[in-house]
Order: sequence, then structure tokens, then C-alpha cells
Amino acid sequence: ISVRQTKSAYRYRDIVVRKQDGFTHILLSTKSSENNSLNPDVMKEVQNAMTTAAADDSKLVLLGAVGSVFCCGLDFISFIRRLTDDRKKESVKMADSIRTFVNTFIQFKKPIVVAVNGPAVGLGAAILPLCDVIWATEKAWFQTPYAAFGQTPDACSSFTFPRVMGVASANEMLLSGRKLTAQEACAKGLVSQVFWPGTFAQEVMVRVRELVSCHSVVLRESKALLRGTSRAALEQANERECEALKRVWGSPQGMDSILNYLQKKIDGF
Amino acid sequence: ISVRQTKSAYRYRDIVVRKQDGFTHILLSTKSSENNSLNPDVMKEVQNAMTTAAADDSKLVLLGAVGSVFCCGLDFISFIRRLTDDRKKESVKMADSIRTFVNTFIQFKKPIVVAVNGPAVGLGAAILPLCDVIWATEKAWFQTPYAAFGQTPDACSSFTFPRVMGVASANEMLLSGRKLTAQEACAKGLVSQVFWPGTFAQEVMVRVRELVSCHSVVLRESKALLRGTSRAALEQANERECEALKRVWGSPQGMDSILNYLQKKIDGF
Amino acid sequence: ISVRQTKSAYRYRDIVVRKQDGFTHILLSTKSSENNSLNPDVMKEVQNAMTTAAADDSKLVLLGAVGSVFCCGLDFISFIRRLTDDRKKESVKMADSIRTFVNTFIQFKKPIVVAVNGPAVGLGAAILPLCDVIWATEKAWFQTPYAAFGQTPDACSSFTFPRVMGVASANEMLLSGRKLTAQEACAKGLVSQVFWPGTFAQEVMVRVRELVSCHSVVLRESKALLRGTSRAALEQANERECEALKRVWGSPQGMDSILNYLQKKIDGF
Repeated sequence: ISVRQTKSAYRYRDIVVRKQDGFTHILLSTKSSENNSLNPDVMKEVQNAMTTAAADDSKLVLLGAVGSVFCCGLDFISFIRRLTDDRKKESVKMADSIRTFVNTFIQFKKPIVVAVNGPAVGLGAAILPLCDVIWATEKAWFQTPYAAFGQTPDACSSFTFPRVMGVASANEMLLSGRKLTAQEACAKGLVSQVFWPGTFAQEVMVRVRELVSCHSVVLRESKALLRGTSRAALEQANERECEALKRVWGSPQGMDSILNYLQKKIDGF
Repeated sequence: ISVRQTKSAYRYRDIVVRKQDGFTHILLSTKSSENNSLNPDVMKEVQNAMTTAAADDSKLVLLGAVGSVFCCGLDFISFIRRLTDDRKKESVKMADSIRTFVNTFIQFKKPIVVAVNGPAVGLGAAILPLCDVIWATEKAWFQTPYAAFGQTPDACSSFTFPRVMGVASANEMLLSGRKLTAQEACAKGLVSQVFWPGTFAQEVMVRVRELVSCHSVVLRESKALLRGTSRAALEQANERECEALKRVWGSPQGMDSILNYLQKKIDGF
Repeated sequence: ISVRQTKSAYRYRDIVVRKQDGFTHILLSTKSSENNSLNPDVMKEVQNAMTTAAADDSKLVLLGAVGSVFCCGLDFISFIRRLTDDRKKESVKMADSIRTFVNTFIQFKKPIVVAVNGPAVGLGAAILPLCDVIWATEKAWFQTPYAAFGQTPDACSSFTFPRVMGVASANEMLLSGRKLTAQEACAKGLVSQVFWPGTFAQEVMVRVRELVSCHSVVLRESKALLRGTSRAALEQANERECEALKRVWGSPQGMDSILNYLQKKIDGF
């Protein structure tokens, strides 16, 4: 069998990939985690789907999710289980997974359009400024309570958030864990535009089809102009953040913080 | 006759220039194009007027337009006519005109105040973040549908738009062609403040007179502080964008795209 | 007596310092100036309090003010008195005071939370983007009319304001002296969130206590990620601005401008 057949035979467990006319639709629909949260397996599948879309005739990638949640960030339940096993090793492994996942977004040369269908938390929200156009439903909300998680920012949010919304709002999100409604996220520049839930899918599709009708050379050259100069700075930010995560998660306090956070969440119910 | 007399005798066809007490008022009022759109001749006249204002006792330049339109971007009608003649040569010529026009704004050492009296499209909107204070009437709107034009961004908008309004909004404007009302443009940081059409001219004049009452050394030093560090980055962005324009316009697909765009506009009526 | 005792015995005249559980509360309450405005003595006291907070077990600094005013910028009354004495010497001295004061904020390694209880003018508003989280009461307002003061921007505002709110709004504030309500300042990214005056103090305290409950290593590493890459650029901006202030204040026109400004303020009553 040919390479092509092998690829098309490749089955995903945690995501749904639909090759459409002119674009690739990637939807989070995790079986190995709750609420589309990200563990190394889920991240790997997204990367693989993006690598395929980078090489085929897709003009862009449309990223979304099945269900009422977009992505609730890292899969802390599976992470803490591993972390109690071997703290040093597992924190390095998780930081490496995040680094590669985030670099996939930084280095992607075609436009990434995101349809945020519901809550976007932690890494699920932090990744957005590495994408190009972000449309959200009115029901979506956005939160990056890293300090409460007992961790430092990821997905370059320590670099991108201050540039998108100013330091005052960025710090309130990253340190104080302020939760933004879709409209607030739009006013602060994290989201391009907000649509009513009832027509969200159609509104996104109309706009994606318009984008796909543009010449691919124009889309590629435009993205290169818009992103070219910041790529190195983003890769460095990603590197610094992953080093900080290793230090924090590798320390006894770091693990304590995650346990405290999970305890609070459980007590909250 | 002296150089000074020669200069003051210089007549403009596509712009109106009024030397006022303390500032130079430049108004687009194009005869060689529709809707104050920009061709190499119009751009040249604006540059000449700005060069004069840079050298005389003007403390600032006030840029506006006669009529109900501010500036509808490039003059595609005349451009496509030339492009069909000699694609390579004419695309280089146009890119060179844009580069020089945009550099004139980047390198201008006195404050540039803009009164946006109506629609600002393409290059007419993209140039705004290279100016200093931008006041708009409620009736103005802003659109940079470059991908639909079949071209890549110009006037450093691939550099300035993400910095002004964040990547999500910048990409929606530059790739998806999202049209902003004056209030939306103000909320996103493209415009300083919006005024009612009935009192727009007066509101602008009051504020320009206040600015002109400041010491010229304070205005010059302030602008140097505010712009000094970004000049080189802007010049490089301008250079990269003009190179991309040459590549796109110089290709058969690029010319096709402009023709498609014009066809759609005609069909729209 | 020990060094520690000496320090705790240190009494402030123009500020109130309260070491709380997990943080240091610094409140402007100037005796040597009106409206919490800043002269070299007040700035020195703030620096001393911050140096103490940097070294002790405080996880963050909470900066606020006693009364209904936050900080009305430079103490022009005492400055003009000195300036008429020896213009060159006194303008250098004031610029040096500002440089050191501003660098204290740039280089502070723990989060700085600000509770803006009332008007923030000039240096009192310009310093905010060098802090991390900024909460304001609905009654606060923000103005940096530097050109009207006859001076150039300070506290890195020529660098931070365009990055926080875009060039159009930054220039309107710094050149045209546009006054922002608390809500406007929040929409433009200068402020993190606005609260009702009646519950302002409690809202701030709840959030400060939550921040203080985070591990100090997480707060320190997060701030290092968020600020690390911009420190050198901010120090350079501070340096350039202070050099410009020396040139402007050291000139006869500069002193004239301050006198004109004070005259207008007096005539305004």
C-alpha cells in the first residue's frame, strides 16, 4: 500500500479530522480525557493532523470541538497521577509535549481559524493568539488561572497576552485568573468576533468558504508577513515558559499546588 | 525667481494644500481618480506637500479629504489597465510608488493628525497607524480586504495592525476583510476618538489649535520618543510588504485576482 | 540594635506603609505636596518602601493612596520654584529623581498591584503600565497632558502607551491630553477592571488575598516570564525620556511652558 493510503487509513481517537474542499477541519472530541482537555496523546493527534494539513492542498485549518466545551486546558487528572510516580521525569515529559505542541502552532504556515464553541481554559485559551482568526459563540468563556493551578503561563501567553490586551488585563488573567465572557474577550482582542450560538456554525462556515476562495499564494504570503518577524521571539518565549514549568512542576511545592487546585475544584461541587 | 517662490507657485491637481497658522492642511480631492483613490500621481502630490510641511514652520500636518469619502485605497482601475500592458514592469513601478509613499509617513518628524471624514479602504486605512492622532466622523468606516483584492497587506499594516488591535482582529481585517464602523475602529485602537458628523470639522479644529499652541520642540521631541524606536522595524516591514506585492502582482494569479475583484464589484451594482 | 529594628523604626512622612500578611501595602499620603503629587522626597520614600518589600517575605506590593486622589503627577509648584533658581542643575536633578523612581518599578521582581482610588495624572498615570494588575474605582480618571505641561512623556509612557492602547489613543493622551474615565481607561487596557466606589476596597482586598495565597515561586517566575524580555527596552525608554526632559526643562521655552500651564490652571478657578 502507498504512503497516501497509509495516511488516509490513520485513525484518530481524540480528534475528528474532516478534509473539506480547500481546508482541513480538526475537531477536539477527546476519549482519553474529560472536557477536551489536553494530554500528550491528544496533543500528538492534533500535531499529526496539522502536519498532514500543512502538506496537502488545504488552504487553511479550521480548529473547533465537538460538544459544548472547546478545550479545558491540560488534563490535570492524568498528569497528577503520573507526577506522583516520578516527579522529575514526568514534569520534563509534559513540558516537552507542550513545547512541541505549541511550536506546531507557531511554525504553521497556513492560516489557522478557530471556532470557539464553548469554554476555553488554560492552554486551550492561551493557544488562541498563536492562531490567526478566532470566532467565538456567545456562550464561550475564557480563563487562564495559572497561578491558582500552581503553574506559570504556557503557549507563549506570557508573551502574547500583554501584546494583545495590554499588561493590566494580561496579568489579571494570568495571575488573578479573571474569567472573560466572549464579549469581553472580543473587546480585549483575544477573539475576532462573537456570534449567536444558534447561527454560529453557519457564520463560521460562510467566512471560511470566503477565505478559501482566495488564492493560496496570497494567504501564504500574508501569513508570512503577519507572523514572520515574531516567530523567533515566540519560539524563545515557548522555550522559557517550558523551562519554568519544569522547575515549578519538578518542585514539591508545584505538585502541592496542583493537588490543592484539584481539591478546591472537588470541594466546589 | 527664488526657490521659495517656485515652491509656492507649485499647483496641485489631486490635493488641496492650505498653509494655516502653525500647521499645513492637506486634503485629498482627486481629479485623476475616483473616490480619492491613490495612484502614483496622487501619492507623489501628497509626498511633495508633506516635504514642504516638513521644512516650513508648520508644527504639524492635518490630513483630510474633500467630500464624503476619505480614501478608497489604490486606484485599481488605472492599475489594471497598466498591468495588462506590462505586468512585471508595472507591478514593480506600483510597489516602488507605495514604498516611497509609505516611507514618507514613517519618516515624517512632525505630528500627523488625520480627520477621517468618510470611508477609509485598503491603503487609505492601512496608513492610519503610521499617523499620530486619528479623529473620525461617525459616518466613517474602515476596511482592508486585501485577500479579496488578491493582494498582500501594505503600508506596514501586517506589522502595525496586530500591534494596535491584536492578531485576532488584525487577521480578520487583513484576511477576511471585516468592515469596521467608526466606533468599532475606535474600540480596537485604530481611531483616537469619534465625533458627530455635524460638528466634526469644528471638534477637529479646536483640538488642532490646542496642539499647535504647544512648543514645537515639545511636539518634535515627543514624536521622536514615541516613534524613534520603531522606525527601522517599520521601514523593514514596508520593504517586505512591497517585495511581496511585486511577487503577487507579477504573477498571472495576482492579475486574475484583481480582475475577479473588479468583476465582483461591478456585479454588485 | 539590629538592622531589622532600624528598618522597622524608619518613619515615612509622605507615605503610609503597612506590612500585611503576605504583602506590603504602600499608600501615598503626602505632607510635602498637594494631591499626592511627586517631588524627589516622595519618590525616595516610595523607593525605600519598595526596596524593603523586595527583600522581606512580601509576595507582592499593593500601591494605593489615602484620600480621594491617587496621584496628580509631578509637584510642579516646588519644581518651578527650584527651576527659577538654577535651571540647568535643577532640571538634571529632577530628571535623575524620575529615572531612579521609574527604574524601581521596572526592576521590581514581585507583582505590583495598584488600587487607583481617584484621579491619576501625568507621572501618576504613566507609571501604571509598569505595574502588573491595576484596579480602579469608578470615580478615578486618567490624564497625561504632557504637551500642555510643556514637557515630553515620562515613566516610559512613550514606549508603553502605544503598546497598551495603540498609537492613535496613546498620542491623543500624550500629545492632546485626552482625559479618560475609569471605564474608558479599562476599555483601552490601562486598567484591569473597574469597581464601584462603595465596595472598591473590599473587592481589591479579596483579590489581593487570593493572589497572596499562591506560591511565591509561581508569582516570581510568572512575573519574570511576563516582564523579563521587556526590561532592557523599558530601561532604555526611561533613559531616552529623561534625557529629553533635561533638554526641555533646561531650555528657556521649557520653563515658560510650565509657567504658562500653571497660569492657565490658576485662571481656571
